[in-house]
Amino acid sequence: MSPTVPPVRGGGRTATSPKQDRSRATRQRLLSAAVDCLAEHGWAGSTVAVVAERAGVSRGAAQHHFPTREDLFTAAVEHVAEKRSDALRALARDLPPAGTIARTRTIVAELVDLYTGPLFRAALQLWVAASNEPQLGDRVTDLEARVGRETHRMAVRLLGADEARPGVRETVQGLLDLGRGLGLANLLTDDTARRHRIVEQWASILDGVLNREE
Amino acid sequence: MSPTVPPVRGGGRTATSPKQDRSRATRQRLLSAAVDCLAEHGWAGSTVAVVAERAGVSRGAAQHHFPTREDLFTAAVEHVAEKRSDALRALARDLPPAGTIARTRTIVAELVDLYTGPLFRAALQLWVAASNEPQLGDRVTDLEARVGRETHRMAVRLLGADEARPGVRETVQGLLDLGRGLGLANLLTDDTARRHRIVEQWASILDGVLNREE
Repeated sequence: MSPTVPPVRGGGRTATSPKQDRSRATRQRLLSAAVDCLAEHGWAGSTVAVVAERAGVSRGAAQHHFPTREDLFTAAVEHVAEKRSDALRALARDLPPAGTIARTRTIVAELVDLYTGPLFRAALQLWVAASNEPQLGDRVTDLEARVGRETHRMAVRLLGADEARPGVRETVQGLLDLGRGLGLANLLTDDTARRHRIVEQWASILDGVLNREE
Repeated sequence: MSPTVPPVRGGGRTATSPKQDRSRATRQRLLSAAVDCLAEHGWAGSTVAVVAERAGVSRGAAQHHFPTREDLFTAAVEHVAEKRSDALRALARDLPPAGTIARTRTIVAELVDLYTGPLFRAALQLWVAASNEPQLGDRVTDLEARVGRETHRMAVRLLGADEARPGVRETVQGLLDLGRGLGLANLLTDDTARRHRIVEQWASILDGVLNREE
């Protein structure tokens, strides 16, 4: 792992007691159940009680880990975002050779995939709820900014993009916005076939922009 | 108006009775109030009764025009989408000269603007609710497909894009997905400054792709 990897909360390789292990396992089960619940039922259908039942955890234990509903769901989205970041970092070690179109295509496809799974569905439910509920708004805005910055950093690193060159920063930002838009297009129908064609074409455009000589 | 403009429901220039005029005005007020309500309060907070009160219309009159909640809100999103289509068609008559980067920039900015106003906010609320509520799902999927096709057609026409050339169709589709992603990024915070930079950069990239000789 590179030194810039943020510490995994509650994790690490130090010795832990069985009680700590159980507590961590409970927390993980709650976070996973919360993401699935948000993605499937939306904010209105997602309460701490529903998630606790889904996770097979008592409501008291759930509230011990997450005192409020907002705590639970923002932590859940952040948790899955961190797992996806780890997966993207692992990808960096296993890419086609630098300077090839195959590499750019693989990276664009993986970045776009960030926005088409259950994490994006859950995050979208949270964003939309936050746009109507002030008590959720600040928390989610803050979370979105952190996840967005981290994703941008990873995209720049994977693509080997030189942000000192004019326009490169905006090119990469636009790519992530494209991913977000493709995630939205996949919300109600399976948009996989169309998305693959767009990823192929935009990867080729992007490859030309990022790798051309100025 | 071009012959391809779909008929405006309940509109047109034929003579109407005062009663028909009143009925049409009531319908328009309900549709506008419904969009505002969805954008501000989300699906959970949007009922026919709330919209009727906001529009200053009796609940009975509202239900005469729109028998169900689903009827009202899908009609509202479609109505505003049609108004936006009309505005885009009007734009086509007032663009910078063909073949200039200024023209491409204006078109990209206008297309992206489709996704940053109250219409997109309302549509997003409806999409997200539809992903959790089966009785809304088919209606919204159908609506989204129609609005999406119409927007794509207009984008192709405005950009003068030749879809017979390989990759051009996917380039234009991706541009609209980029717009959708930028709309989402604008949901919780005012993303205008960042968005303008991205639009400028990607307009310049797209101009190169769409207008280069093959």
